[in-house]
Amino acid sequence: MEITTATQQKSLLETLNPGKRTRLRRLLYEFGPGNGTLMLLPIDQGVEHGPRDFFPNPASKDPEYQFKLAAEAGYSAIACQIGFAQRYYPDYAGVVPLILKLNGRTEIPPNDNALSTCNSTVEDAVALGADAVGYTLYVGSPRQDEDFIQLRRVRQDCDRYGMPLIIWAYPRGSAIEKKGGRDSFYAIDYAARVAMEMGADVVKLNMPKLDPERDKDSPAPYNELQVTQEEAIRHCVESAGRSLVVLSGGSKVDDEKLLEQTRFIMQAGGSGVIYGRNIWQREWSQALEIIEQIKETLVSSVTRVP
Amino acid sequence: MEITTATQQKSLLETLNPGKRTRLRRLLYEFGPGNGTLMLLPIDQGVEHGPRDFFPNPASKDPEYQFKLAAEAGYSAIACQIGFAQRYYPDYAGVVPLILKLNGRTEIPPNDNALSTCNSTVEDAVALGADAVGYTLYVGSPRQDEDFIQLRRVRQDCDRYGMPLIIWAYPRGSAIEKKGGRDSFYAIDYAARVAMEMGADVVKLNMPKLDPERDKDSPAPYNELQVTQEEAIRHCVESAGRSLVVLSGGSKVDDEKLLEQTRFIMQAGGSGVIYGRNIWQREWSQALEIIEQIKETLVSSVTRVP
Amino acid sequence: MEITTATQQKSLLETLNPGKRTRLRRLLYEFGPGNGTLMLLPIDQGVEHGPRDFFPNPASKDPEYQFKLAAEAGYSAIACQIGFAQRYYPDYAGVVPLILKLNGRTEIPPNDNALSTCNSTVEDAVALGADAVGYTLYVGSPRQDEDFIQLRRVRQDCDRYGMPLIIWAYPRGSAIEKKGGRDSFYAIDYAARVAMEMGADVVKLNMPKLDPERDKDSPAPYNELQVTQEEAIRHCVESAGRSLVVLSGGSKVDDEKLLEQTRFIMQAGGSGVIYGRNIWQREWSQALEIIEQIKETLVSSVTRVP
Amino acid sequence: MEITTATQQKSLLETLNPGKRTRLRRLLYEFGPGNGTLMLLPIDQGVEHGPRDFFPNPASKDPEYQFKLAAEAGYSAIACQIGFAQRYYPDYAGVVPLILKLNGRTEIPPNDNALSTCNSTVEDAVALGADAVGYTLYVGSPRQDEDFIQLRRVRQDCDRYGMPLIIWAYPRGSAIEKKGGRDSFYAIDYAARVAMEMGADVVKLNMPKLDPERDKDSPAPYNELQVTQEEAIRHCVESAGRSLVVLSGGSKVDDEKLLEQTRFIMQAGGSGVIYGRNIWQREWSQALEIIEQIKETLVSSVTRVP
Amino acid sequence: MEITTATQQKSLLETLNPGKRTRLRRLLYEFGPGNGTLMLLPIDQGVEHGPRDFFPNPASKDPEYQFKLAAEAGYSAIACQIGFAQRYYPDYAGVVPLILKLNGRTEIPPNDNALSTCNSTVEDAVALGADAVGYTLYVGSPRQDEDFIQLRRVRQDCDRYGMPLIIWAYPRGSAIEKKGGRDSFYAIDYAARVAMEMGADVVKLNMPKLDPERDKDSPAPYNELQVTQEEAIRHCVESAGRSLVVLSGGSKVDDEKLLEQTRFIMQAGGSGVIYGRNIWQREWSQALEIIEQIKETLVSSVTRVP
Repeated sequence: MEITTATQQKSLLETLNPGKRTRLRRLLYEFGPGNGTLMLLPIDQGVEHGPRDFFPNPASKDPEYQFKLAAEAGYSAIACQIGFAQRYYPDYAGVVPLILKLNGRTEIPPNDNALSTCNSTVEDAVALGADAVGYTLYVGSPRQDEDFIQLRRVRQDCDRYGMPLIIWAYPRGSAIEKKGGRDSFYAIDYAARVAMEMGADVVKLNMPKLDPERDKDSPAPYNELQVTQEEAIRHCVESAGRSLVVLSGGSKVDDEKLLEQTRFIMQAGGSGVIYGRNIWQREWSQALEIIEQIKETLVSSVTRVP
Repeated sequence: MEITTATQQKSLLETLNPGKRTRLRRLLYEFGPGNGTLMLLPIDQGVEHGPRDFFPNPASKDPEYQFKLAAEAGYSAIACQIGFAQRYYPDYAGVVPLILKLNGRTEIPPNDNALSTCNSTVEDAVALGADAVGYTLYVGSPRQDEDFIQLRRVRQDCDRYGMPLIIWAYPRGSAIEKKGGRDSFYAIDYAARVAMEMGADVVKLNMPKLDPERDKDSPAPYNELQVTQEEAIRHCVESAGRSLVVLSGGSKVDDEKLLEQTRFIMQAGGSGVIYGRNIWQREWSQALEIIEQIKETLVSSVTRVP
Repeated sequence: MEITTATQQKSLLETLNPGKRTRLRRLLYEFGPGNGTLMLLPIDQGVEHGPRDFFPNPASKDPEYQFKLAAEAGYSAIACQIGFAQRYYPDYAGVVPLILKLNGRTEIPPNDNALSTCNSTVEDAVALGADAVGYTLYVGSPRQDEDFIQLRRVRQDCDRYGMPLIIWAYPRGSAIEKKGGRDSFYAIDYAARVAMEMGADVVKLNMPKLDPERDKDSPAPYNELQVTQEEAIRHCVESAGRSLVVLSGGSKVDDEKLLEQTRFIMQAGGSGVIYGRNIWQREWSQALEIIEQIKETLVSSVTRVP
Repeated sequence: MEITTATQQKSLLETLNPGKRTRLRRLLYEFGPGNGTLMLLPIDQGVEHGPRDFFPNPASKDPEYQFKLAAEAGYSAIACQIGFAQRYYPDYAGVVPLILKLNGRTEIPPNDNALSTCNSTVEDAVALGADAVGYTLYVGSPRQDEDFIQLRRVRQDCDRYGMPLIIWAYPRGSAIEKKGGRDSFYAIDYAARVAMEMGADVVKLNMPKLDPERDKDSPAPYNELQVTQEEAIRHCVESAGRSLVVLSGGSKVDDEKLLEQTRFIMQAGGSGVIYGRNIWQREWSQALEIIEQIKETLVSSVTRVP
Repeated sequence: MEITTATQQKSLLETLNPGKRTRLRRLLYEFGPGNGTLMLLPIDQGVEHGPRDFFPNPASKDPEYQFKLAAEAGYSAIACQIGFAQRYYPDYAGVVPLILKLNGRTEIPPNDNALSTCNSTVEDAVALGADAVGYTLYVGSPRQDEDFIQLRRVRQDCDRYGMPLIIWAYPRGSAIEKKGGRDSFYAIDYAARVAMEMGADVVKLNMPKLDPERDKDSPAPYNELQVTQEEAIRHCVESAGRSLVVLSGGSKVDDEKLLEQTRFIMQAGGSGVIYGRNIWQREWSQALEIIEQIKETLVSSVTRVP
């Protein structure tokens, strides 16, 4: 079975209340590459993976590294946890926008029943002068029931305070592993849709991995779809509807692939990228170099008006 | 054993407070087919099943499709989740009434212990200008204890704000599977009654499936009842008492069957239908066509004054 | 071992605050048989057992049946769930007192770890003009810890609003089954005492079933007691102390037995009966007939001043 | 290994806020034996064990029995549950001080994971005019995490309202059974300390049972301690620090033993006793007789100024 | 693989709000060794381990012992639980600063799924005049989801009241045992980072134990790192970033080792030590002696400005 695509997303900004619009426009137009694109720097790996991610580039262990990088390279925003933000953001207040990541977990216990609980709130974000909050939703986790309740409160606070909501839409848990896996087209596509329906202003997605063998375990029609990587990501972006989509990077890949997938997401109607280890695991000057190339790709490949 | 029917339901509207009455009348008389009937369009499948439901008709993936359909074909209301509503309803505000679906779950984890948690609230519905809320009650689930508590809060908010409460009354969970299954006459009949006793203004029911083999596992007298499909649905409608009943569609069936069951529910004292995939999995003009036929059936077969 | 009885209960009404006293007196003296007795009609079986209970008398499925019966036959009060009350009680407001049953569960999942959660509140009861609330306490359930917390809130609201609290004191769960069973003398006697100590104004008890074989599993001295049915029920009534006791009926039994057990409970110091299926599973005129006999028995056998 | 004792407890009353001091002084000096001792009568066994405890003395089943006993024999206070207190305490208000027991459980389910939940609150105690509250802490239970949270709220309310907090410090649960058992010196000593550190004004302890065989499973140095019964109880009293200690009785023992252990606890620096079944399972005049002897022992053996 | 270190921590005090700054400066400069160092005395072992820790020095069982020691030896602060503080701190108010330890657990139940729940609050700490609160975070426990939520509330209250937050960052639970164990370099390093990102002002760490055999189970690159003890602790201190680090002692070790590790932590950029059993399990004069040596080491080895 082949898939066709059909949607032309309308403007998200038009639907937002004044507070959300103000803050999101800041990220899309006033900081970063501009042109309605998002280049975001995540640095929550210290909680999610521990300090092991910092060994390839020891300088990256000092939170100053990411903040300075975000400021000097001209990022749309930097995303981090509360303690991190409280201790390092003050020196960069007004210089680079802040996305407060509200929930998190360590990788130590297994994530069969993953739930990422909130260690900070939208009010904390307001107090810090943040321009958005980040929330990890483990789509399809056996504990999704709790996840939806927790997200509801975050979403309502976002509505109340005019704070843009960015959902890290991650398929997780024992159940998805039996249906093609957390990186399957089925899983990512489902996650994109759920994030939109739950109220995400921006959805952070991983690139779907096409694996004919594992995809057989996905429900129809995913178990027999013939799609290219580009088509898959386009489909996922469409599933997010009016919500903006940014592509997540994962562990470090080579430059060519990084730029290629950046082009893919933008051509598919995405709004930008959120690459962490791919950036700050590089030495300073090399990091600046790849950032420049990403920025150019974003601006040159953008196809959607937010 | 045969069954006889005995009840003649009295008016529901008479028992409602002014807010509920105002809003529910709008759905029953001002929009849709009128005449006290309900033709509802549900589009929460993106969460419940994922985007796989959109492949038969790729255009249906864009939420615009369902909103435009509901508006142009003259629906009583459209039912969807919060993020969906916030992003697409504003363009249709006042044009088609909104039912905010308060809870939901993905189909990824098994539903042996199903609980559908609230990702939005009655206050969200009020803020959106919705005319009703939808709540999925998993009747008989091992987690029914939590479900009743959650529903209590929704029901109380509905009373407080004068918001009609539509209960998706779905038997679910490992226990019902041992007693004839979730679609058995026993299960649907029980669900109808529970929804009414929990405070539903409108109950959404699936058509009971008569299966003599599985029905043997149902408690007496269901294990030995001799009923036709029509009698079974009439019985279920009666179990809902003064609460209005709308029939749910499920996966796509052929036109004849769809119209027949529409007639059944209306002749049994039901108040309308809530068909999703049966409608929007059709191409635009075909959808309009079947909608027209359903509408005529509703108006011509209606037997109850709400 | 034989048992002796020793207590002469003092007046409950004297200990109640004005609100409770006003409402409970209404049930004891202004409605029903009067003379300080209680004849209560429960109709929560639609939730507890499902519509299967209505097949013996199809007319009983319509909530009108029980309300009309309660009104015309002169009941002390009718007990039902919130949705039921909201839809049918308005027509009988002031004609027959209402007991709002606050919690409930379906019989679909097993009750090894039974907990009956609240689908309505004391405030709902106040809003409806109810004269008492009903609460099912599953004495000895492995989830009794949660039950006591939930009951605490109900009890406190009852104290605050002056609302009489009727506890359905039902031994339940896997643990009691290993100690003689939920209907054993040990279990019922324990339940009566716990209900009193938790703050019941009225305790609803099942008749203890004497079964020498199973009673051997009860703790001493119950495992070797020589008691008659009358002595057992008297003992249970005494365990409830100053709290009033009403006897529950269970599934339908023959008239003679029904009247006999009515006499037993009254002679034992009980205050009345709460029979459901034994009444409304009868055709109208037969129901009226047995009600009349029960009423006479209550008045003629009453031994306690409430 | 031998143990030595080292501490001389300072005054507790000096550390208490005015409300706590007022109420606790009432129990220590205005009622009961006086002289800074506590003679408390517990009657929560109806919940904890059921009515089976009343068979040895049928009169004890009537709550009047304990209240009259406490009043006439001159107790420092009587301790009971909320429903019991609401129904029977009014007749004795001002005549005998009340300790409201806030939590409880039936013995029906196993207590491997024991948690005793609150069926009443400190505010209930204030409303009743109680002079202290009682709280059962299951030290070392697998659910101690929940217990500590629940106790926190009680302790904070006690601080707020100036209500003395008496902790029933009971080792319980599957884990302690593997370390020498709930009555071991290790267990009781640990419980005494935890109760003090959690904020008990008075700690209720069971007498530690020295059992060389089982004590081998206790952690060092308890697994090899050479102590007498007297030394053990002295050690436990010291572990409670400035908190007062009262000795619990358990099931009925002979008079000599009862008076001996009363002497032990007072000589060890304890402040009194809380004997239930040992008292009210006796016929009236016999009860009065032993109470008199206990009272004399308390006054003659007291070694600590509270 | 070898590791290099790269960070030079900036001032923490500069980032703190006035309340936190005032209180933390008091500990760093007004009490204790001064010079921006912290010498803290913990006495929460009565809850965590029970009275068994007091046998080596029976005098230590009396809370007076630790308070007097802290006061006379000139400690920066003493850390204890609420009941302990309420009963013994008043005599030392203003003489030695108080750290209220908010959560705790007994060692009786296994800690595979460890969670240390709060038995007191930041408001309790404010009421007592405490200068900081302590919170045990079980990093990597299967119940970390609950831990983060609980910590969030504590952290927010600390922000609100200007109360310094000291996190006992302890890897715990079944999962970490499979990845090298709770004392591994991987575990301690991870814990340090998580504590900082969760908002700790001060992080309490155990000394990582290098065990080539068990470290093989740690994730890369920890499974193959070649580090000395000094390098490991330096790395962990850096992972805590701007948060101050104090070294925890554990069970009693010999003097030389104690002073050596004190030097290590200070040279690594740490801010002090928090030794309990190593101090108060010594007889009074011996305790004073070692304290003096530790104090000198702190002041002479300090390398960081807080």
